[in-house]
Amino acid sequence: MSRYGAMFGPDITFLGIDPCTLDDPATYRDADVVIVGAPFDGGVSHRPGTRFGPSAIRSADYLAHDGSRPSLSMRVDALRDLRVLDAGDVEMFAGDIEGSITAVEEAVATIAASGAIPVVLGGDHTIALPDITGVARHHGMGRVSVIHFDAHADTGHIEFGHLHGHGQPMRRLLESGAVRGDRFLQIGLRGYWPDPDTLDWMADQHMRSYEMSEIVTRGLQECMDEAMAIALDDCDGVFLSVDVDVVDPGMAPGTGTPEPGGLTSRQLLDTVRRLAFELPVVGMDVVEVSPPYDHADITAFLGNRIVLEALSGLAARRRGDTWQPARPLLDGRGTATP
Amino acid sequence: MSRYGAMFGPDITFLGIDPCTLDDPATYRDADVVIVGAPFDGGVSHRPGTRFGPSAIRSADYLAHDGSRPSLSMRVDALRDLRVLDAGDVEMFAGDIEGSITAVEEAVATIAASGAIPVVLGGDHTIALPDITGVARHHGMGRVSVIHFDAHADTGHIEFGHLHGHGQPMRRLLESGAVRGDRFLQIGLRGYWPDPDTLDWMADQHMRSYEMSEIVTRGLQECMDEAMAIALDDCDGVFLSVDVDVVDPGMAPGTGTPEPGGLTSRQLLDTVRRLAFELPVVGMDVVEVSPPYDHADITAFLGNRIVLEALSGLAARRRGDTWQPARPLLDGRGTATP
Amino acid sequence: MSRYGAMFGPDITFLGIDPCTLDDPATYRDADVVIVGAPFDGGVSHRPGTRFGPSAIRSADYLAHDGSRPSLSMRVDALRDLRVLDAGDVEMFAGDIEGSITAVEEAVATIAASGAIPVVLGGDHTIALPDITGVARHHGMGRVSVIHFDAHADTGHIEFGHLHGHGQPMRRLLESGAVRGDRFLQIGLRGYWPDPDTLDWMADQHMRSYEMSEIVTRGLQECMDEAMAIALDDCDGVFLSVDVDVVDPGMAPGTGTPEPGGLTSRQLLDTVRRLAFELPVVGMDVVEVSPPYDHADITAFLGNRIVLEALSGLAARRRGDTWQPARPLLDGRGTATP
Amino acid sequence: MSRYGAMFGPDITFLGIDPCTLDDPATYRDADVVIVGAPFDGGVSHRPGTRFGPSAIRSADYLAHDGSRPSLSMRVDALRDLRVLDAGDVEMFAGDIEGSITAVEEAVATIAASGAIPVVLGGDHTIALPDITGVARHHGMGRVSVIHFDAHADTGHIEFGHLHGHGQPMRRLLESGAVRGDRFLQIGLRGYWPDPDTLDWMADQHMRSYEMSEIVTRGLQECMDEAMAIALDDCDGVFLSVDVDVVDPGMAPGTGTPEPGGLTSRQLLDTVRRLAFELPVVGMDVVEVSPPYDHADITAFLGNRIVLEALSGLAARRRGDTWQPARPLLDGRGTATP
Amino acid sequence: MSRYGAMFGPDITFLGIDPCTLDDPATYRDADVVIVGAPFDGGVSHRPGTRFGPSAIRSADYLAHDGSRPSLSMRVDALRDLRVLDAGDVEMFAGDIEGSITAVEEAVATIAASGAIPVVLGGDHTIALPDITGVARHHGMGRVSVIHFDAHADTGHIEFGHLHGHGQPMRRLLESGAVRGDRFLQIGLRGYWPDPDTLDWMADQHMRSYEMSEIVTRGLQECMDEAMAIALDDCDGVFLSVDVDVVDPGMAPGTGTPEPGGLTSRQLLDTVRRLAFELPVVGMDVVEVSPPYDHADITAFLGNRIVLEALSGLAARRRGDTWQPARPLLDGRGTATP
Amino acid sequence: MSRYGAMFGPDITFLGIDPCTLDDPATYRDADVVIVGAPFDGGVSHRPGTRFGPSAIRSADYLAHDGSRPSLSMRVDALRDLRVLDAGDVEMFAGDIEGSITAVEEAVATIAASGAIPVVLGGDHTIALPDITGVARHHGMGRVSVIHFDAHADTGHIEFGHLHGHGQPMRRLLESGAVRGDRFLQIGLRGYWPDPDTLDWMADQHMRSYEMSEIVTRGLQECMDEAMAIALDDCDGVFLSVDVDVVDPGMAPGTGTPEPGGLTSRQLLDTVRRLAFELPVVGMDVVEVSPPYDHADITAFLGNRIVLEALSGLAARRRGDTWQPARPLLDGRGTATP
Repeated sequence: MSRYGAMFGPDITFLGIDPCTLDDPATYRDADVVIVGAPFDGGVSHRPGTRFGPSAIRSADYLAHDGSRPSLSMRVDALRDLRVLDAGDVEMFAGDIEGSITAVEEAVATIAASGAIPVVLGGDHTIALPDITGVARHHGMGRVSVIHFDAHADTGHIEFGHLHGHGQPMRRLLESGAVRGDRFLQIGLRGYWPDPDTLDWMADQHMRSYEMSEIVTRGLQECMDEAMAIALDDCDGVFLSVDVDVVDPGMAPGTGTPEPGGLTSRQLLDTVRRLAFELPVVGMDVVEVSPPYDHADITAFLGNRIVLEALSGLAARRRGDTWQPARPLLDGRGTATP
Repeated sequence: MSRYGAMFGPDITFLGIDPCTLDDPATYRDADVVIVGAPFDGGVSHRPGTRFGPSAIRSADYLAHDGSRPSLSMRVDALRDLRVLDAGDVEMFAGDIEGSITAVEEAVATIAASGAIPVVLGGDHTIALPDITGVARHHGMGRVSVIHFDAHADTGHIEFGHLHGHGQPMRRLLESGAVRGDRFLQIGLRGYWPDPDTLDWMADQHMRSYEMSEIVTRGLQECMDEAMAIALDDCDGVFLSVDVDVVDPGMAPGTGTPEPGGLTSRQLLDTVRRLAFELPVVGMDVVEVSPPYDHADITAFLGNRIVLEALSGLAARRRGDTWQPARPLLDGRGTATP
Repeated sequence: MSRYGAMFGPDITFLGIDPCTLDDPATYRDADVVIVGAPFDGGVSHRPGTRFGPSAIRSADYLAHDGSRPSLSMRVDALRDLRVLDAGDVEMFAGDIEGSITAVEEAVATIAASGAIPVVLGGDHTIALPDITGVARHHGMGRVSVIHFDAHADTGHIEFGHLHGHGQPMRRLLESGAVRGDRFLQIGLRGYWPDPDTLDWMADQHMRSYEMSEIVTRGLQECMDEAMAIALDDCDGVFLSVDVDVVDPGMAPGTGTPEPGGLTSRQLLDTVRRLAFELPVVGMDVVEVSPPYDHADITAFLGNRIVLEALSGLAARRRGDTWQPARPLLDGRGTATP
Repeated sequence: MSRYGAMFGPDITFLGIDPCTLDDPATYRDADVVIVGAPFDGGVSHRPGTRFGPSAIRSADYLAHDGSRPSLSMRVDALRDLRVLDAGDVEMFAGDIEGSITAVEEAVATIAASGAIPVVLGGDHTIALPDITGVARHHGMGRVSVIHFDAHADTGHIEFGHLHGHGQPMRRLLESGAVRGDRFLQIGLRGYWPDPDTLDWMADQHMRSYEMSEIVTRGLQECMDEAMAIALDDCDGVFLSVDVDVVDPGMAPGTGTPEPGGLTSRQLLDTVRRLAFELPVVGMDVVEVSPPYDHADITAFLGNRIVLEALSGLAARRRGDTWQPARPLLDGRGTATP
Repeated sequence: MSRYGAMFGPDITFLGIDPCTLDDPATYRDADVVIVGAPFDGGVSHRPGTRFGPSAIRSADYLAHDGSRPSLSMRVDALRDLRVLDAGDVEMFAGDIEGSITAVEEAVATIAASGAIPVVLGGDHTIALPDITGVARHHGMGRVSVIHFDAHADTGHIEFGHLHGHGQPMRRLLESGAVRGDRFLQIGLRGYWPDPDTLDWMADQHMRSYEMSEIVTRGLQECMDEAMAIALDDCDGVFLSVDVDVVDPGMAPGTGTPEPGGLTSRQLLDTVRRLAFELPVVGMDVVEVSPPYDHADITAFLGNRIVLEALSGLAARRRGDTWQPARPLLDGRGTATP
Repeated sequence: MSRYGAMFGPDITFLGIDPCTLDDPATYRDADVVIVGAPFDGGVSHRPGTRFGPSAIRSADYLAHDGSRPSLSMRVDALRDLRVLDAGDVEMFAGDIEGSITAVEEAVATIAASGAIPVVLGGDHTIALPDITGVARHHGMGRVSVIHFDAHADTGHIEFGHLHGHGQPMRRLLESGAVRGDRFLQIGLRGYWPDPDTLDWMADQHMRSYEMSEIVTRGLQECMDEAMAIALDDCDGVFLSVDVDVVDPGMAPGTGTPEPGGLTSRQLLDTVRRLAFELPVVGMDVVEVSPPYDHADITAFLGNRIVLEALSGLAARRRGDTWQPARPLLDGRGTATP
């Protein structure tokens, strides 16, 4: 039973947590969360580089890689309060998109079947198809709602003559029945894509997409309240798919298809944390972090924190906390251990 | 009749729209908008590089350069709903500021005279002088209001011993009578320039300048409501002059005189779109994008989107739309063409 | 009496103000403010480079280095309305943290004793210990409140086996009695550090730390109102310690330990200016600007403006102004000197 | 008959030469050289980005894109003395390596069949397989010698479970019989790849590979004399395959698998020019220029000049020149046209 | 008598040497060398940025700016053995090329008339016209030979409709008679510019231009021996004009018109030093260092060392040394002062 | 017995070789080579960042981190033919130079005492003092010759008031008697440091320093022949200390004190390999790789290859090979294992 490990670079784990081996279920028995890398950028329509996303997200920090990250805000240490393991990367060859999709779907389905929550580090957004399908195979086709943060709808039909790519996974998911159209929530869309025909198709599927004009006008909080209510209605779990390009390129330059006018980092982190705390998350991916276009690793740091905020929310939810975002940091603390 | 084309690099057009030739009016008859590049950086007081702005703004996108950009928010495809052509660059030699100004003024006046709206891609802000003068020659001296987004007032008198440069065009415009001082609106000023004497001169001209403290305190929306009312009062058209440094340097690093503490990209895009939709825009420039100081093209992308948002607002206005920014993206859509 | 000058690079002063020599009190007699550089990065736990912070902060501007900066917003020219001098750098060897701390403390105490306000340009945050101690030696131990902008609490006990470093100065300050725990206000904390034991210790000291969740939920303005009231209660002066990483890494990438989700540049500048205007500031430092990780100098520009906003607030306070942030820029101005 | 044009970015041609359309033979009748882009990076084992190689190589210049480049050294203007056309890019999807290879092979075979010399701009080295196969289909399997500049042998068998990729094309070419092993010359190999088994296989094929130690010890000139003699023996044409990583990473940083210790730019340019002048070149590719890792476009410039030097050598050969590299630049010139 | 100082950034001098003021001859009486900055980039045909060349060249060093640089190789301390002063920058406005040229010519002529050797820090190569003319006004029209290191001949006639620019100064110098064509030596030309007509004109002037093919084939040493002999024949002094783009872009990326295949840094430094030692140098410029395109300041360092090597050669020549390049560093040294 | 591991970032080993723990001798019993990181940059006089050198050097490769690197040139797989282990980093605090030096000396002495060759990855050159002292403690004070590649002599006496730093280790080594002055060979010195007094001191110690002028004039090969003969005379081992700044900054920009005009990468790699093959190497360090100033990791790659070339030479020496640098790569190979 050998661990495949890292596809590019040294074999490291997310901030030093323990590794596990997908082929050996004993290594992740009783895990709450299994992180797995999907170092694939063969599906991008423009700038590549997300193949280095998994290693960048795993290591982007200035603290020791000691498998501990106590959240100031949530008062949990997700990496310790939960059993979080890192299965390394799935081997994915950029030149073989179908084979790569299959490999990820198997890995995610295996993790979900074990009872753990899969957290997939992309890679480009192509992998949302196998990520969510893998989860749906366990929880039931059409039984998992999706909340999708992105500048782009990713509901294209055929691009460059192919059915798969980073602009099409959401369409494939609805076509296959893995997700119900009316349980597919999109946050942060903007710009000039896709075309009206595709938007019509999306409307026909009863998708609910929050473009930035709506978000700015109504407020992100109100939009999320509404989206969460839809997501929770008649579902058995929620999948969070976070494309880092939902954040403004100024705060997340390391990505392939930057669209100006996005959320702030603060808004995204607060929202992800809240969703993980308030919803029954059964899977997650963080995609489109492209280190070659990053500066001073700031996008990699953001990707790392998206994962940590989600895990912290999850840990607080499991502990049965109530969440008081306005509570002063030091309130109720004290009497330090010497 | 030969097209001058591009001053630097290959001859491309804005996102693949059709070219036209300024010397040949037949090529832009019935155009709604003519884009023209002003690759001039001979007027900057600090970092140069805006000569590459026109080509960067024209090509900064991840989608195909196919002359189509359907706006999610405005529900128009400005590049198709309007007839938008690209006249290439005006030849401008950095070492000859007077000659360069004259060349741009002629180009803009020619476009305006044809009935099309000129959209000038800078270049440094020196070109606001010929841009706005060229428009005023057609619409009437003093008949065009100006809304000017910038961190700087650009009302200097003499810099480095010269009357022209990127810090002085607004003064020259008022002196010549091209624009009335009390129809000159400035949004986003901040920092430590110009000096009190110049501010006194501006006040004497009855300019209305919104510094960031006022904008933050009162809210951008309220300030813009007020500015728009002034601009519309007794005018025959409005010129938008957008210096990308009005945005915070974190979100627009590729510029020559960055001043911390600016608008967000989202704020600027929303505002430009709104102005183009609600005001009778007769000309526009987007200036001070300096690719050598950019990172991962994020400032070039922003410049491109400023143009697209303005064109989208214009197209929606021409169609007679009402604008509902809070309307859900997919509301009223559906039944996709197979 | 020779001036030590610059530790790295040419000997320049902050935007061209006059130099002074610490060993020669006559050179800074009657100064209101003395700027001094602390080019030390031997205390960082991760990315170094802040040794170049003082020179970067001093020179990051596009205007002439002429010792004049009239603030649009505050209507003062701090560099002229106040007597602001630049003493150059303290010699500090990265490899000798104790010696470096001592050297800075002496320099700051000397400036404070002269009656001037010391403004220290870091350097890493290690220097807050000597900065604040030096001021406290003059104003009284425990008599100076501290308002500390930072993503991190900097209250670690021992790191890498040492008592000193950029993560520990605030603990040392409370231990020594230089500052009272209940007069230590922290703004902008976030992320996953320090650990709960350290938070307990902080609570035991009655520190008041505003984490970003609280700031976002309650609003920065309300939090600052509260913090200012605490700071003013039974104190003889306030020290402002501004770690540039309190700002989001997208807007301040040039720093060593970036933590996503921070304040905007605009928020920090507005707040610093307000504090300097409303509180009896007796010292200040601006730290953790790390040029090797910066892009297009935007973090250096931000550091420069943090100093200028503080000085402008101070100048306005000394003049006895009332502050009307919403007042239009040109209101009450006019009749330019020809 | 529509031209596919550019896969990424605007549709430009190599330095402004005329375009042609592969589907329309009339557009390249009588062409001497047809340039075609292969914007594929789905085969790379490490850093991607070569998909932007074709556009970067086409446009990397500071002179006007006017379809003229008079060589100082060769006294020809290859772009005018020869009929050189640019067919744009072949559509290649990174996620489909087999389909992409097929598409390039067809394009190259079509060009070769027309009598023109195909010059393929990569893309990663995967494309050497279709490039050379396409040429061999016209000139005869086993009838074309290959001179291959590279840090790497590219003779791997299976990588990431696949037969195709940028480390394997040369093996596939020998297996298929497209090229004879004893007419395959490699220049510039170094480092620690491939493994001894692969080297044994190469020796079994009677390949001739010049590692840098041999080149440094014997001299590049002597090695090339020998290689050229082998290449010319019993062959009907020579294909030049130039991987830019044969040059030292210091002079060609914009590439995916940099191996220190390579040739200088000067050495490569001189050698390519000489080969094109002295050998019957029937095809060429320039690969592995990866703009995301480039700095100030220096690697793109180098790729552009590799093409120009080859074309200049070819033009001089066609004109029947003798070549005197030591002849003074101005010798035999004079009497300028006024 | 006020010193103009620096046009951009703080007023610094070359490595901390003493300043002088051009308007005040007493400040540079008895100077051997006067350094002056020409921060002009209004004449470039492509990438600007050389306006920051003077400050970058002045300060690019890791040692203290103490006005001392003992050359290991030449055994002199040029900054101390000679009286070398820095006059600051000439004010030059990019938008006014004629005015800028005039200003530099006056400054250089003033320095030359004082008996000092002017060393001009560019700036783009436009300034060679006033640099050399200014020197010729003192030493006699046609009495000064020029040795010109460059990738480009800079003998264009009219570019962008103008007589002046960075591609034309050498033509203007010959036309005016400032320099004799047969005393104009060019080293390092390569690439595809200028066109044959211009080369014919150059030949008609009896210029001697060493293209890289000749240099590589014959050896740099032999070419320089020949060039030096020509330069010395019937002349009263030699001017060295060093365009940093003569070096390969891999070693000098920070420049505007990079041409692959140049000299190594080592070759240029050795040659400049030798020329300064063996020839009667009466003036020098170092041009085309463009910091915005530089990386880690390596091109600025190179520019700084070009100046230092020339000054070191000059100092050794003045001392009447013989030069033994192969002499071991420590040969003949010893007995350290404690 | 816990392994300290990595001081910054994840705990990785050199290209995936097995780890060992310094505190547990059993883990490196029978090792031939033990690699150890010295992530210290507290001793630099200018740009820091070498603390990230060890991790960068360990991981800079495009091949799998599988603990195997078969050298094409030397026909050995050093990582497998030798037993090479990686002990991780020594904990070193930048702010405590004395403590850090002591810690490294103990680590190196421990490795040397075990019979393994220590290879230390820096870090700044301060660590040469403990590296060589640690080796000398085992092999005998004065019994180990040193061959030192560097642009700088590193024989300063006191810098910034301290005895230790990256410019002084060689002086301390001679003072302590760890190395004999007449067995200290320096290769590649150049520039303007140190001052004549220090050079006199060096001469007094009978050091032999090859400045670049001598190397260029006599040839590197001849200089190295001479240096090797000196090193071998009456010594028990040779230590190689390689400062990456011996290479030209164009090819090694990622360093703190770049000095133009250095060796090429090819020259350094060939020379290091030869020394390791021909001399009895007993220790080595590779220092001054500073990732914050690197581009596209090219300096990190170079650092990695310096280690690999040395190990390859060592492995070939141990196997008793003769070395034929001109032997064709495939000569004597063949009959591949299927």
